[in-house]
Parts: sequence; C-alpha cells; structure tokens
Amino acid sequence: MDTRLSQIKLRISKLRDALRTAGAHAILVPSADPHLSEYLPGRWQAREVFSGFTGSMGTLVVTLDDAQLFADSRYWTQAERELADSGISLFKISTGASTQHIQWLAEQLKAGETLVVDGQVLGLALAQQLRTALGAKGVRIDTAIDLIDQAWEDRPGLPDAPIYEHAAPQATVSRADKLKQVREAMAKHGATHHLISSVDDVAWLFNLRGSDVTYNPVFLAHALLDAEGATLFAQPGKIDALLTQRLAADGVRLAPYADARAVLGALPADAKVLIDPRRVTLGMREALPATAPVIEAINPSTLLKSRKNDAEAEFIREAMAQDGAAMCAFYAWFEAAMARGDKISELTIDERLTAERAKRPGFVGLSFSTIAGFNANGAMPHYRATDESFAQIEGDGLLLIDSGAQYLGGTTDITRVWPIGRITDDHRRDYTLVLKGTIALSRTVFPRGTLSPMLDAIARAPLWAHGLDYGHGTGHGVGYFMNVHEGPQSISKAVPDANMAMEPGMITSIEPGLYRPGQWGVRIENLVLNVPRDTPEGGQFGHMLAFETLTLCPIDTRCIAVALLSDDELAWLNAYHAEVRRRLAPLVEGDALAWLNVRTEPLRR
Amino acid sequence: MDTRLSQIKLRISKLRDALRTAGAHAILVPSADPHLSEYLPGRWQAREVFSGFTGSMGTLVVTLDDAQLFADSRYWTQAERELADSGISLFKISTGASTQHIQWLAEQLKAGETLVVDGQVLGLALAQQLRTALGAKGVRIDTAIDLIDQAWEDRPGLPDAPIYEHAAPQATVSRADKLKQVREAMAKHGATHHLISSVDDVAWLFNLRGSDVTYNPVFLAHALLDAEGATLFAQPGKIDALLTQRLAADGVRLAPYADARAVLGALPADAKVLIDPRRVTLGMREALPATAPVIEAINPSTLLKSRKNDAEAEFIREAMAQDGAAMCAFYAWFEAAMARGDKISELTIDERLTAERAKRPGFVGLSFSTIAGFNANGAMPHYRATDESFAQIEGDGLLLIDSGAQYLGGTTDITRVWPIGRITDDHRRDYTLVLKGTIALSRTVFPRGTLSPMLDAIARAPLWAHGLDYGHGTGHGVGYFMNVHEGPQSISKAVPDANMAMEPGMITSIEPGLYRPGQWGVRIENLVLNVPRDTPEGGQFGHMLAFETLTLCPIDTRCIAVALLSDDELAWLNAYHAEVRRRLAPLVEGDALAWLNVRTEPLRR
Repeated sequence: MDTRLSQIKLRISKLRDALRTAGAHAILVPSADPHLSEYLPGRWQAREVFSGFTGSMGTLVVTLDDAQLFADSRYWTQAERELADSGISLFKISTGASTQHIQWLAEQLKAGETLVVDGQVLGLALAQQLRTALGAKGVRIDTAIDLIDQAWEDRPGLPDAPIYEHAAPQATVSRADKLKQVREAMAKHGATHHLISSVDDVAWLFNLRGSDVTYNPVFLAHALLDAEGATLFAQPGKIDALLTQRLAADGVRLAPYADARAVLGALPADAKVLIDPRRVTLGMREALPATAPVIEAINPSTLLKSRKNDAEAEFIREAMAQDGAAMCAFYAWFEAAMARGDKISELTIDERLTAERAKRPGFVGLSFSTIAGFNANGAMPHYRATDESFAQIEGDGLLLIDSGAQYLGGTTDITRVWPIGRITDDHRRDYTLVLKGTIALSRTVFPRGTLSPMLDAIARAPLWAHGLDYGHGTGHGVGYFMNVHEGPQSISKAVPDANMAMEPGMITSIEPGLYRPGQWGVRIENLVLNVPRDTPEGGQFGHMLAFETLTLCPIDTRCIAVALLSDDELAWLNAYHAEVRRRLAPLVEGDALAWLNVRTEPLRR
Repeated sequence: MDTRLSQIKLRISKLRDALRTAGAHAILVPSADPHLSEYLPGRWQAREVFSGFTGSMGTLVVTLDDAQLFADSRYWTQAERELADSGISLFKISTGASTQHIQWLAEQLKAGETLVVDGQVLGLALAQQLRTALGAKGVRIDTAIDLIDQAWEDRPGLPDAPIYEHAAPQATVSRADKLKQVREAMAKHGATHHLISSVDDVAWLFNLRGSDVTYNPVFLAHALLDAEGATLFAQPGKIDALLTQRLAADGVRLAPYADARAVLGALPADAKVLIDPRRVTLGMREALPATAPVIEAINPSTLLKSRKNDAEAEFIREAMAQDGAAMCAFYAWFEAAMARGDKISELTIDERLTAERAKRPGFVGLSFSTIAGFNANGAMPHYRATDESFAQIEGDGLLLIDSGAQYLGGTTDITRVWPIGRITDDHRRDYTLVLKGTIALSRTVFPRGTLSPMLDAIARAPLWAHGLDYGHGTGHGVGYFMNVHEGPQSISKAVPDANMAMEPGMITSIEPGLYRPGQWGVRIENLVLNVPRDTPEGGQFGHMLAFETLTLCPIDTRCIAVALLSDDELAWLNAYHAEVRRRLAPLVEGDALAWLNVRTEPLRR
C-alpha cells in the first residue's frame, strides 16, 4: 500500500474515532469554505485531504462503517482511479443532482442518530434542505462541532497574502459609489444591515484584491454594511496602513476575521439583516441575534458586479487583445516546434503558454489551471496534466487547450482545438458540429431579461440533430479581474429564476463541446458581452440584446468539414477571423504575425 | 347605464353586503371550479358573472371599497372594454405572474382583517402561497364559507349531462389496465389511497367521457382509489345501469358527487393519501383526516395520459387526416365564395368550418371555440367573434383561423393564416419569420428527458433576430379525445421541473406567433408527436426524440417571402406539402381536391 493510501485510511480512521467520541454516526464533508468559494484555501480542503479525490467538486460522507464520495460524470474516471483501494466508494450522481448525498444520508441514518457537519462551511440553502430531509426521518444534525479539526493533525492555518487595491483606471467605479449602490438596494429591501460572505462580492464592492486562493484574485473576508458604514472582517496584517486609511476615508472599518460572528451576535435585536441564502453559511446565519428579522435575497453586489460598464468593457477588449496576442506567439512557437520534431508534452504547453501571457501588460496570473488535453485526455472536460500523469503531443489527433488569465483590466477564458498530424473525417465532423453550436448561440439575438438557461438549447441543437450532446453547461458568467466563474447568469440546464435574467454588460462563456471517452474531446469557447441591439421595431416587442464576441483568437479551420457549415455560418466565421486579424495584427510581429495571418485566412468551400 | 352594467354593480354590492355580514374585508374570486378545470361549468363562472369580464383567465378581488380584476396582456384590450364604468379596475399583470393578486392583497389588507375565499375552488398550491404571504402580515383567511352563493341569486346548479364510455377500438387500453398502472405508481409512492379531482385525469382513467363543459369531453367527478377498488363521485343519474355494471366489473363503485368530502373524512386515520397539490383544492385536502399522512406528487395518470401509445397515435393520424380533409373542403368553398364576392364574416367562417368538420367520421364536437380573426382581430391571440362584434372579410389583409375538434380517435388544434386581397411585404415578412420559428422547432431533435420549456427559445430565435417576439407560450400538451390543453409538458417560459420532461408519445403544439395590435396577427400552429429518433451514436449521448408533425393542412405559400427561407427550411416546407397532399388527396374530391393540389404545389425561389 502506498503512502498516500495509508494516509487516507489513517485520516478516515481518526475521523471515525472523533465521530464515536462525539456520540455521532456520520459526518458530511462538503467541498466548501466559510465563504462558499469555488476554489478553496488549503485549510478547507478537507474533502480532498480525507478522501484523496482531487476533483474540484464532490462531497464526502463518512459513517462508522461506510464512506462514500459523491461526484458527477465529469469526475467518474478520475474519482475511480483516485479512490481505488481507499475503502471509499464512488457514488455516481447525475450532473446537477448536487444534493443526492442528502437522500443517501436520509436512507442510511436511523431516527435518533446524529449527523455532524461543520456549520461554518455549510451553505444556508443546503442546510435547509438537509434539515427538511433528515428532520423528517428523526435524524439529529449537529452543526456546532468541527470534527475535521480534531482528525486533521497538520491542518493549514488561514492564508496571509496581502490585500491590495484594484486601482483606477481599471477600477472604473469608486468604492464609495459601489457602497452607495448597495445601500440603495438595502433600502429597497427595507434592510438596516447586510452581511456579505462571498469573497468575490467583497472584493468587488471594496475595489480590493488578494491571493488567498489560486486563480481567483480574492481574499478571505466577510463584510457587514449598515446605512452609513461598513466593517471588513479580514486577517489582521493583510492590509497596510495606507490602504487602511483609504478604506477609513470611505467609512470602512477593519476588524479581525475571527470577530465576524461576535459582531453579528451583538447587532441590535431589531436589526433587519439582508443575507443571500446561497452565499452565506449556516454558521454566519446562526451568529445573528435570534430575534433579528432576516431578509433573504440575492446579494445586490452579485447583480451589480455581473453588469460591466462601458469603461470596463473597453479594458476587457484590450485584455482580450493582449490575451490573443499571447496565444499567437505561443501557437507560432508550438507549430514550429512540432514541425521541427521537438518533444512537447501537455505540461510544456502549459509552461510556454503561461510564459507568453506573463509578458503581456496588465497580466496578474492565470484565471484557472490550464487544461491541455491530447486525444483521450481532451475527452475529460476537467482534465489536468500533472507531473505524474501527462501525455506527449505526438502521432495524430486533436489537442484541446482551455486556458485563461487575470489581467488588471479583465479576466479571460478560451478553449481551442488543434489538429495534430493527420486527422480523420470523424474528427472534422465532431469539431464542425461543436463549432456550429458556438456560432448558433453567438449569433442569437434575444430580449433583455431572457432567463439565461432558456438559451442553452440553441447551442446544443446542432449536436442533438446528430444524436450528440455534452454533459456540462453551455456557459458561465465571468468576472472583471475577478473569478472566472461568477453568477448570477448561467447558460445551462439550471432551473431558471428571475435573478438569471440577461442584462446588458454581462459577460458569459459560450462553450459547447463533445467528448468521446478514450478517444478525443472538442470544445470551442469564446467569451461574449451582452450588448443592446437596436432593431427597427424599437423595443415594441422587448429591448433586444446581442452577443459581442470578446475573445480574439483564430478558430482552426483545418478541422472544419466545410460542407456541414451553412453560408451564414461560414460568413460568421470569416467575419470573426477578419476581426481577429484586424485587432491582433498590431500587437504581434515576426512568426506570431505570420501565424496569425495564416490562421485567419478566409475559409472557402 | 345598460342592464349588464347595473347587474354587475348590484352583484358587487350584494357581495360587499355578504362580506360585512360575515365580518370580512375582502373576497378572492378565482377562475376555478372544484376540479381546477380550464373550462368552467356555469355554476363556477362567478368571476365572469360578478365582474362582466368574459376572458378565460383572470382573478377578481373585491374589498369593501375597491374591486380589481387581475389579467395578463392577452386580455387587456378586452378587459378594459368590458370593465369600463363598472367600478372594477383592471390590474395589468405580466404574463406568468399569475399570483400578483396575492401581493396586492398582502399590501391592502391590515393585520387582523379577514380575506374570504371558497376553499372548494382554491387550488392547494395557491392556498399555500396565500397563507405564506398573508399569514406573514397577520391577515386571517376564511376558506370555509361560500359568500358567492349568498350573493348570486340565480346561480346555476350542477351540470347533468350523461356520462358515456370511450370504447374500443379508439380506447386502446382497458380501464382495468389503466387502474393497474396507477396502482403500481401509488405503491411506488407508498400510498394506500389516491384522490383524483382533475376531470381529465378521471375521464382518462375510467375510459369515460361527458359534456359537462363546452369543448372538453369531461364530466364533473372526483375519484378515490385504494389498492383494490375505486370510488367515482359523480352526480347520480348521469351513469346508466349498463355502464354502472361495467364499472362495477372493474371494481369501480359509484357514489354521489356531494359525498366525496365525507368519504375522505372517513378514511382510516393511517391512510397514506397521494394527492397532486396542483390538481386538488384546499377543500378536498382539508376533508382528509387531520392525521392522515399526505404524499404530494403529480397525479400518475397525468404522466401516463400524456404518453400516447402506438395504437392511439395511429387513430390520431387518421383523425388529423379527417380534420385536414374538412379544412380542404372549407377552404375550397371559402376561396370560391370570396372570388364570387359573397359576403363572408368571421362568424360565417366558424359556421362553415364547423359544418365541414361535423361531416367527418368520428367527429364529436369542437375542441375550443374557433378563432377567426381578420386583420386587427387576428392581433388578439384570444379573440372570439360574437354576434355583437365581428368583422366582415373584405378588403386586404391577413385572416387568422385557429380551430380544432374532438374526434373519438383524437383531438386537433391548428392555426393557419391566409392572404385576403393584396398583401404587403410587411405581411410577408412577419408571416415568414413566424413560419421559420414553426419550422425550426419542428425540425429539432433533442434528448429524451429534455425539460420541455428548454425548447421554447428555438421557436423564438428567428423572430428575436428581427427584434420581434410573442407574448404567449410556444406549445401546450394535447389530449387524446380529451382536453386540447393538457400537461405536464409545456414549451414555454414556465419554470421547468422534472415532470415536464419530454417523453415518447407526447403530443404538443408548436405555435409561434406575431401580433401587431390594431393591424394584424400571425400564428402558424401544428401538433407534433414525440417519436424516438435512432441515431448512428445509438444512445451513447442520450436517446433522441424527434417531432412527427401530425397536423395535415397546407401552409399558405402566397404569404411567404421566399428569400427569407433557407434551403433547408424550403425543403422542409415542400416535403410537408408533399406529405399533406399524399395523405389528404384520398379523402377529398372535386373543388376540395383541386384546392389541395394548388395549395400544396412546391414553392420555388
């Protein structure tokens, strides 16, 4: 048995000891932190540390005699490999069935038994579902103890990276103005106070950034607003004296991170607190005075943040051009190196592409870990090459590269697929059908206020027509020098609600795909901006929005089966390539410029 | 003041007297009966009788000093006209905001005041929303008294039309087999009993039909199933002795309609009763023993009924051919009469079209009231010509005809638009864009299980592209010699839930439209059947469904701007017309055949 496996078994054994000591029968370990973030600081990676499963989403449940890891189809191959011989079973859930572990717990636990889950990392909405399902069965839920802490000997502490200001000109709206906007929304809700725990909302609202987690330029903090002031709960020492002064000038007080719950508990008994049940934990909710009336609504900052203003859109267009220029330089090198017969692996691609991006003005870091997947690896939508497991780019097939970066003036996320050696008609058909999906949605005009999930089928229809589909969403919101995944909009099978309405200024990805396990994967992804589209009808039938494609990078035409494209689709593609050439040519030279010119040649029948 | 207005004012005044006598402050009058039907027997048309508003949907709220009629945009023109000078205000709600009156009531009523609403016609789901919203404000809700009955002097009694059997061969599954299927579903839910109040579910389950309301071949009844038997609560005398015997042979007991609540109240205290909260009233729910555990789920019959089997599909295809043949005969007459200069009105159209349908084998009646709307009248999606208000078909423009019938072997619903005199390029553009929507969705292939609302955008996209849209859903489920509107599927902006998944055998309308108030309306509607579509991928990416277009009737090509159609769309249209000709030609002769041949000529560029 290898070291990794024996460590997992030891940890699970310690967790069961802690359960027995506490007189409890099961523990739920979600992939979550006190801010319900997507990327977790080391301190809150318990699910990974206790299970050995390294995927980004999944839930671990450990009972006294069983252990199950719940994960959806994107992770099955990986989870089966990583869980092998660990004593932890993989429970395969369907995509979107993110609460199937609740049903499982309701079936396994008997009346009078106790489930433990740390309320500090349990989302309020999830807690409510858990209580409904387990309460009905007479199962007790103890959310007040942190057994993970008892069983995890070398648990990391809080991250201590400095917090810095996102400054003008890229920060286009002042902190004072943002606070004013949120306070106006609080007033509309009749709230006297507003607790914000989601780290991207906090960073956006205060024009601050950090690096407490990889890829997302955020820092751990809660914020509490009232009608005049605001308190920012962050680890002491992360904000220097000058920034402290600047915050104070905008009415922002600093308080230690650990004090948030005590301060909430000391609120006036008649405080009307606005909280977002999807973005606040049970632990924070329960810290409020029992008598305080709570107003549940989406964070006003989540809505405001999603709508980029015109000045931000201009910075984003510039960041996209820089990102595209970096890719021209990378791909020019890549194609030349392949032609020379250099040995290139998926890891080399990540290194070289990152290096090209790092040369670009405004670059801060990557926005997520590069996915460079050759052939079968490209068929795993969440694949990541590691030092232990990666492929050489050799022979024939498709190379999928999904990558992105953080710039001071925007966040990028792009997927392209490239032919390696000889490719087949099957490759071309798959590639072209996915491209038809990308084009179909990119060209769609729709009424402002359309609930974003309602657009999902438009990207899938060209694949459906051939009996094909993909198991992930079509598009996610994207932040502005902020998280590469943000809400509230989502072009997916999510259940639509009014908060998911499409509004001008939102940035969303369009990324249909097609995955043939063990063979190859295709995904073609651009980011698009919601822009008003004036029509001759002038709003009589609703004000229309169109997508402006922000991403600037050639879409490989050698992979296209041109007979499958309609004239309209071909015209869209050629117009896109003309624009890519126009915008990127001034930013590249030499081999990169030559590559750009070749790859943006109009495609003809 | 005319008689109608003075009657309305008198009734409202009596209603307020009844409110005062009861010590109450407001009454809610929904458009509903004890079965939550779409079409209401006279006895339950209180909303229309007390307000004078004759639209099919709307809610009346009367307080001691105010009266509001809540209706969505489809009805605004009509409601404004009908409510004028009545003392009742029109409250304009957005389409889909069917519970806006609840918010209004919550704002108007003060703590301690009482709202009266007859629990016998109040849906359980609506009652729960009402209690949440008003309970929070401290408003009392009295659902136990029927003030309408006190204020309505000449209120009609219960309908007494006979109940008859839907017999083989058109009834393709025996009553015993249907009861067995529902009991299997009950067992899966762990239910000992199952109450069904929705009249189409009752009619489907027992293979019975009636004529208690216009257009829907149903009868007023509740049904209570247990593991062995069933009780049908219907007015005595509506079922003859022979049918009574046949029902008894299948374990079906008869009981008076009025006894349902008493029988429910006498159920064993540990009965586990399955009810559908969207299809059962508060009154029926409260009749159950307080201790009985209730299992809330969609009626199993609603799901079973939605999936027509192969034998039913064959009968439907035959009914569609008969319906199409009737339309050929009608349109041949109509065009000849117009050419002769005969005076034809919207009312004449209804008469002649109905007469042609009535000649066809299996015809039972209309499935809804014919909408024949010329020009501006066609711009009202729910227009109905009356003796007092109708248009002559003369001059130039578009004539919209939406009609359908009940046959023993199926239910039809079709909309076509015809050019009258000279039409303009604007007419042609609107017509062609709507047609593109109909074709786009008709051609869509999609995975089995796709939630039907997710398909809605596909029909709208061609209109959206030109800044256009329509304010109604794209498609509704259709019954089998049953209600022309049935669930659970809905191609619309409805919030999707798992019950709305597309399954083989479902029949749905596809009916995008475009309405220019005061000018003209376009809607092109076919019914389609979900049929499995084998693909080369063989289910690897999900089992696919396609739409088989069931409706057989030419789509006028003189209204088409052919330049706006893609080659694929033109090919679809010509293939459809070839099929219409092939299927209808054997059923028509003379002028009708000549008309069919002309109107199904292939369209060329």
